Amino acid sequence: MRLSDPLNAFCAHSTARLQGAPGRPLSGLAFAAKDLFDIAGHVTGAGNPDWLALHPPASRTAPVVQALVDAGADMVGKTHTDELSRGILGANAHYGTPTNPNAPGRVPGGSSSGSAAAVAGGLVEFAIGTDTGGSVRIPASFCGIFGIRPSHGRLSLAGVVGQAPSFDTVGWFARETDLLARVGEILLGTELRHAPRPRHVIVATDAFAIAEPVTASALRPAVERIAALVGRSEQRAVSASVPLAVWFAHQRAIQGREAWETFGDWIDRNNPRFAFEIADNFLRGMRVEDTALTAAREFQAARRRELLEMLAPDTIVCLPTAPFPAPPLRQPRSTMWAKRTAISTLTSIAGTLGAPQLSLPVAFVDGLPVGLSLMARPGADEMLLAFARELPPDL
Amino acid sequence: MRLSDPLNAFCAHSTARLQGAPGRPLSGLAFAAKDLFDIAGHVTGAGNPDWLALHPPASRTAPVVQALVDAGADMVGKTHTDELSRGILGANAHYGTPTNPNAPGRVPGGSSSGSAAAVAGGLVEFAIGTDTGGSVRIPASFCGIFGIRPSHGRLSLAGVVGQAPSFDTVGWFARETDLLARVGEILLGTELRHAPRPRHVIVATDAFAIAEPVTASALRPAVERIAALVGRSEQRAVSASVPLAVWFAHQRAIQGREAWETFGDWIDRNNPRFAFEIADNFLRGMRVEDTALTAAREFQAARRRELLEMLAPDTIVCLPTAPFPAPPLRQPRSTMWAKRTAISTLTSIAGTLGAPQLSLPVAFVDGLPVGLSLMARPGADEMLLAFARELPPDL
Repeated sequence: MRLSDPLNAFCAHSTARLQGAPGRPLSGLAFAAKDLFDIAGHVTGAGNPDWLALHPPASRTAPVVQALVDAGADMVGKTHTDELSRGILGANAHYGTPTNPNAPGRVPGGSSSGSAAAVAGGLVEFAIGTDTGGSVRIPASFCGIFGIRPSHGRLSLAGVVGQAPSFDTVGWFARETDLLARVGEILLGTELRHAPRPRHVIVATDAFAIAEPVTASALRPAVERIAALVGRSEQRAVSASVPLAVWFAHQRAIQGREAWETFGDWIDRNNPRFAFEIADNFLRGMRVEDTALTAAREFQAARRRELLEMLAPDTIVCLPTAPFPAPPLRQPRSTMWAKRTAISTLTSIAGTLGAPQLSLPVAFVDGLPVGLSLMARPGADEMLLAFARELPPDL
Repeated sequence: MRLSDPLNAFCAHSTARLQGAPGRPLSGLAFAAKDLFDIAGHVTGAGNPDWLALHPPASRTAPVVQALVDAGADMVGKTHTDELSRGILGANAHYGTPTNPNAPGRVPGGSSSGSAAAVAGGLVEFAIGTDTGGSVRIPASFCGIFGIRPSHGRLSLAGVVGQAPSFDTVGWFARETDLLARVGEILLGTELRHAPRPRHVIVATDAFAIAEPVTASALRPAVERIAALVGRSEQRAVSASVPLAVWFAHQRAIQGREAWETFGDWIDRNNPRFAFEIADNFLRGMRVEDTALTAAREFQAARRRELLEMLAPDTIVCLPTAPFPAPPLRQPRSTMWAKRTAISTLTSIAGTLGAPQLSLPVAFVDGLPVGLSLMARPGADEMLLAFARELPPDL
C-alpha cells in the first residue's frame, strides 16, 4: 500500500507499517513515527541515505512504538527527519523538505519535520518524534499543532537513533489536547485524572525578550487567559544570573560533543554525504574542547539547582516556543544561522533543565502559526498534559 | 552516442562532445576534459550534483579546450572530479570513485580522477585536468601515467571552475611523453625543439625524506639514470630554512581561504550536499584568519625568492610525486587524513613556488605505480617536456 503523501512527510524508502490491536484505548487511530524509531525487520533511515544504505534492518521494534501499537494505534508510516536529527528547520537535502500545511512557503521546523507535517496536514491523528534541542517543540510551533517534549529520562530511548544522551527525549504531536493527553497516558504509563493542578504561573520575561516583538505580542492574550485560569502569576526572568544566550552556548557545547561521540566513528569510517549545514554541526561538535565540556556540565548543574529552588511543583512557566513563525524556505545560510541561534536559545531552557515543555498553537503572526509553551519541573509532565486538556479551545 | 566506460571515468550527465578538425597536429586523437571545463551549451557539473542542478549551460567553450579541438583532437567526454576539485584521492560520494586501472582496489587519485583513469585505461589518448594542490600530479602517480602541472599562470583558466587563484593551473595527462609534449606545444603555444636542455639536477633530500622508504628506494634507479643523463647532480634540501610541513601549512591556509572566497557565497545560498570530507575542507578554509593569511602570503613570497636564487634556469629538481602508491579504497577518515597531509606536503613545493612539475611513471611498489617528478623554475615548462620526451622508455 502506498501512502497518500501530498506533503512529502513520509519516507518513500520505508514500507514499515504496524497494525494496532482492536478494542484498545487508541484503536482506530493512525500515527506516524519519525524515521529514527526502529521497526523490526525494517532499516531505520535517520534522514541520511548513507545511513540507510549502511545499516541492517532493526531486530526489534522500539518500545515506545510498541506501546502505542499495543494500545491499539496503527503505525502507518515512517516520517522524514533532518539528517541524524541534526537540524531545527526541517530541511533535508536528500529527501526534500516536508510541506508545512499551515504556513505555505515556510519550513516545517525540525528535526521531527515529517511527523509534524503529517499531523498538521491531517494525514495521521498523531505522531511521535524526538526532541534533543527543540525537534518536537519547534515544528509544533511552526506547523500550528500541539507538541510535547517530556521530562528528560521519562521515556525509553531504546531502539531510537539517539544524538546527545544528555538531552535526547521522545515527544509527540497532535491536533488537539485530548489526544495529546491520551497518548501521554499510554507513553507515560499514567492516568491524568490524578495529575496535580498548577497554582502558579511564571511569565518568563527573559524568554519573551528573545521573541520578536510581534510574536511576543501575539502570544500575550493567551498568556493572560492562562494566568487568569491558574489564578496566581508573576513576571520574572527564569535565568537569575546569566543571559539565556549563555545557556545556549553551553548546551551547544555538550550537545555537539555528545553528537560527535554518538556518530563520529561512523562518520569517520564511511564519509557519508551530508548537507553542508549538517557537516558543519558535526565538525563544530567534534572540536569542542574537554575544558569547555566540563565548564558546560557545571553550568548546567548550577541552572538545575536554581530551577528547583525557583519552581515549586505546582508552578508552570509560560514562554514563547519559538521567537518567530516559520521562516521562509531556502534562505541563505547566514540568515538561517542567526535564526537557528535565536530559536535554540529559547529551546535550551527546558533542555538545560531536563524539564517538560508543551507547545500550544494559540496565535498567528501574519497568518502564520506561533506556539506558546508551558514548562514545569522535571517529572511534572502529567500536570502539563492535564492542564492543557482543560484549556478552553478558544484560548 | 554512449561512451564505453568500464572505469566510471566519464560523467553520465554530460553529452558534451566536440569534433576536432581534420589534418591538424592532433587530428584523430581522442581526449577527455575534467568536468570543470566549460563546453558551450552544456552545464559544467564540477563533481557536485547540486552545482550541476543550479547552473545554466556554459555560453562558451573554455579556450584551452577550444585550442585542442582547433588542433584537431576530438573531445569525447567530460570526466569525474572530486567535488569542486576539493580532494586529492579521487573519491566522489555522489558519482562513485573512478577505477584505477593500474592499481585495482586503490583510489585513482584526484581531483582529476576521471581524466587520469580514462588515460590510464586507454579510453582516450590524453586528457586535461586542473591542479591546485596536486590534482594532476597525484592521479598521474597513482595511475601510472605521465602528467604535468605547468607553471602557475601559463595557461588560461577562462571557462574553468577555479578553486584558489593563487594555485590553480590547467594540466594534462598522457600514456607517453611524445604525446604529452605535443599537447604541450598546442597549449603552451610553443615549439619544444627550441627548449633548453637541463644541465644540472638537484635531488631534493627533504622531499625524498617525506616518501615512505620503500617508495623512495623504488624511485632511486630512475633518479640515478636522470642524473647520469644530465651530467651534473647534487643532493640537497629544496627548503633551506623550514621543514616542508610548514610549506604545506601555509599553502593550506591560502588555498582554503581562497576556496571559501570562490565558493562560499554559493554554499551559503544553496546549502549543497557535500561529502563530509569536502564540507570539512571548506569549513576549515572559511575559518582561516586574516593574520594567518597574511603570514602565509609572506612565507610564500620568501620561498619564491629563495627558489630563484637556488634554481638556475638549466636546473631540474627530482622529487617523489607522492609519498607512496595509491592507498586502498574506503579507508577510515583518520587514516586518510594522515595520508592526505603527507601527499600535500610534497605537492605544496611546486604549489608554493608556482613551478612546473612533470610526473613520470618510472617504478612500482608491490606492483602499484609510483611517480618521479621533475620540477623547474616557473616558465621552464618547455625544458621539462622536451627533456621528458628524450628520456629512454626503459628509464
